[in-house]
Amino acid sequence: MNTLSTPIAPIETQDPSMLIAELARSARKAQRVLAAMSSEDRAGALKLAARQMRADAAEILAANAKDIEAGEADGLTKAMLDRLTLDDERLEGIASAVEAVARLPDPVGEVIDEAQRPNGLKLSRVRVPIGTIGIIYESRPNVTADAAALCVRAGNAALLRGGSEAVHSNRAILASLAAGLREGGVPVEAVQLVPTQDRAAVGAMLTASGLIDMIVPRGGKSLVARVQSDARVPVLAHLDGINHTYIHSAADPEMARDIALNAKMRRTGICGAMETLLIDSGFSEAASLVASLIEAGVEVRGNDRIQALDERVIAASANDWDTEYLDAILSVAMVDGFDDATAHIARHSSAHTDVIVTSDEAVAEQFFARVDSAIVMHNASSQFADGGEFGLGAEIGIATGRLHARGPVALEGLTTYKWLVRGSGQARP
Amino acid sequence: MNTLSTPIAPIETQDPSMLIAELARSARKAQRVLAAMSSEDRAGALKLAARQMRADAAEILAANAKDIEAGEADGLTKAMLDRLTLDDERLEGIASAVEAVARLPDPVGEVIDEAQRPNGLKLSRVRVPIGTIGIIYESRPNVTADAAALCVRAGNAALLRGGSEAVHSNRAILASLAAGLREGGVPVEAVQLVPTQDRAAVGAMLTASGLIDMIVPRGGKSLVARVQSDARVPVLAHLDGINHTYIHSAADPEMARDIALNAKMRRTGICGAMETLLIDSGFSEAASLVASLIEAGVEVRGNDRIQALDERVIAASANDWDTEYLDAILSVAMVDGFDDATAHIARHSSAHTDVIVTSDEAVAEQFFARVDSAIVMHNASSQFADGGEFGLGAEIGIATGRLHARGPVALEGLTTYKWLVRGSGQARP
Repeated sequence: MNTLSTPIAPIETQDPSMLIAELARSARKAQRVLAAMSSEDRAGALKLAARQMRADAAEILAANAKDIEAGEADGLTKAMLDRLTLDDERLEGIASAVEAVARLPDPVGEVIDEAQRPNGLKLSRVRVPIGTIGIIYESRPNVTADAAALCVRAGNAALLRGGSEAVHSNRAILASLAAGLREGGVPVEAVQLVPTQDRAAVGAMLTASGLIDMIVPRGGKSLVARVQSDARVPVLAHLDGINHTYIHSAADPEMARDIALNAKMRRTGICGAMETLLIDSGFSEAASLVASLIEAGVEVRGNDRIQALDERVIAASANDWDTEYLDAILSVAMVDGFDDATAHIARHSSAHTDVIVTSDEAVAEQFFARVDSAIVMHNASSQFADGGEFGLGAEIGIATGRLHARGPVALEGLTTYKWLVRGSGQARP
Repeated sequence: MNTLSTPIAPIETQDPSMLIAELARSARKAQRVLAAMSSEDRAGALKLAARQMRADAAEILAANAKDIEAGEADGLTKAMLDRLTLDDERLEGIASAVEAVARLPDPVGEVIDEAQRPNGLKLSRVRVPIGTIGIIYESRPNVTADAAALCVRAGNAALLRGGSEAVHSNRAILASLAAGLREGGVPVEAVQLVPTQDRAAVGAMLTASGLIDMIVPRGGKSLVARVQSDARVPVLAHLDGINHTYIHSAADPEMARDIALNAKMRRTGICGAMETLLIDSGFSEAASLVASLIEAGVEVRGNDRIQALDERVIAASANDWDTEYLDAILSVAMVDGFDDATAHIARHSSAHTDVIVTSDEAVAEQFFARVDSAIVMHNASSQFADGGEFGLGAEIGIATGRLHARGPVALEGLTTYKWLVRGSGQARP
């Protein structure tokens, strides 16, 4: 494959703002072509991209090996090296994910609503692509393919800025993906990797109003915080997942234990993991619930009344209620009833995912009405907070902002709409 | 009415950021109460507010007279004084508009979509209020009531910052409105007027991330430009309405003339007015169309080929194609076919409203597909670009950004959604 043997040279000498503007302008031009393609053609191009990645597996893994070697030399942590590492199985997973996105129903062109006015004007709102999406991410090279596929499926151009630790892997994946897309009729500028690791290029992306329509940061908290603080372009993101599970007095004890253990321990490092457990003082099995968590390996940091239940509980500090541990640590508070629980959530939740466990349906509905997080659950583990689990097929990210899209965001969140007005010569009186 | 006799004193001494934070926190608390009210109760409170404004007409007009007097002394232009002036008829219009908003269908609680997952989880997306909306506006005191009514109808708190020239009118309207709303059970902090004319308070609103959820600027271009440039909070706005009408070769000449005259001249000062006319070189009646416009009082600024049609045409400069005149001035270009016309629009449109006039339905559909403005029209005057004309009942503004809401924005655009997940004890495998 020609593109792999001629990797894009770093353009460290160019002014980052000029570079980003140039890339974004060519992306926008390509996006117009992409938007004019049929849904079938966009899907077909993604299938060709997946096939091309399988064909280029050896080159991609060789490029990945360079990153691993450099990462080991640079002393990356084991976790970071693991996120960076590709093998045949992971690469097949990436290619399959691209094919799965190709199979997703296309939101573009969907008529949201229609109306006819008394003067005969016919109005409709139709979904269209947003335009050019900037994705800023770290380590995981699969984001290169996942994000590009979601953008292309919904007719958007993607401007990708991966981390320096994955630079060879990202270039190899993108070159392969782009070759497949081009074969399917997608202009090569529709999906581009920013060809420099200069950090100023990230700043230029964040301030490229009118050139980049939306930024999606994918990575750790410091990356997301920087993006949210510096961006002049709309950002779709979540900073924290400080997720609560409230065990109501009418909770089934066994269900409460199963959900709490799963919400904390299934995977501690994901944004949908529970970070705070609120146990109602009217729940009779509080002590055994806390014991189960501790025995499962959870470090429990409790308020006074939770400490009184079990001597293995550590005293929680004021900070604990606002901390996303992403680890086998849990802050636990005993609360006095529904109002106390929802007040705690209103104060400390990051508005990602909050859960109630109760057998009382009326209380659950009150919880749905009262708690204003992106995702509110009844009798389920917060670890279900995921686009795949929600049936969206994939996700570009989870948003905790209040505008445009909330919770898991997939293809629909990568579209906007326009109004079409069909007249027969109407002038406004 | 007690509140009118005790106007809120300016708090010029307080730190603007602290002041805005305090107001926004109390607004958020009140918004929770508002969101928990039934749709009928919110509508009922708005009707009481309209009644109260009618009862307080004398006080409101007396307050308005003070603003007019000060405005005359300060040398406000005739147009500004007209925008500022209230009389019985205009005040009745304001009260009726509040009642009309009360009658609009409530989007809050609407289920956008529902699904059941194979594991039994039931998902639904339900519309909820956005939260606290900041409105920053100039001269027209009716915005105080209009914006507050739209916010309250959709369960949002409103933080209003009007212009100093309307300060007495705004205080009187708000005091009356708030008294009516309070009678209907809405906490008084749900609708607040920023009690200072310190310009730093506007800056504090624009940067109040986490306290104010969305800013809507209502006013002239310099206000909107400042808000867009300084805001760290999402902004719903349009800066320009550089709207094009393209007269295709297959346009009916009479319809073309009627639409062009209406789009330019019905009201020249509104954002939906046409600012550029593109005439296809294949349109046979170009000369008579240009003559009609000139004879209707339009100053036509044309490119070479338009100048050749009529000696009264003034030469257009390069700037003209990017100018929103808001006056009886029009830039007119002759273009060579559909691609040339849509390329001009892609380059110069502000993405507000663009129109094609043609009898060829297939060309109209191509125009709908190609032109990516918030509103795209076929055979209708761009002056229809208005929430009322679109059947939305009212509008908080027209948005030319790409995310959240585009075109006329009314109640739906003042809501967001949350995901509700109903389980029966599911843990994620």
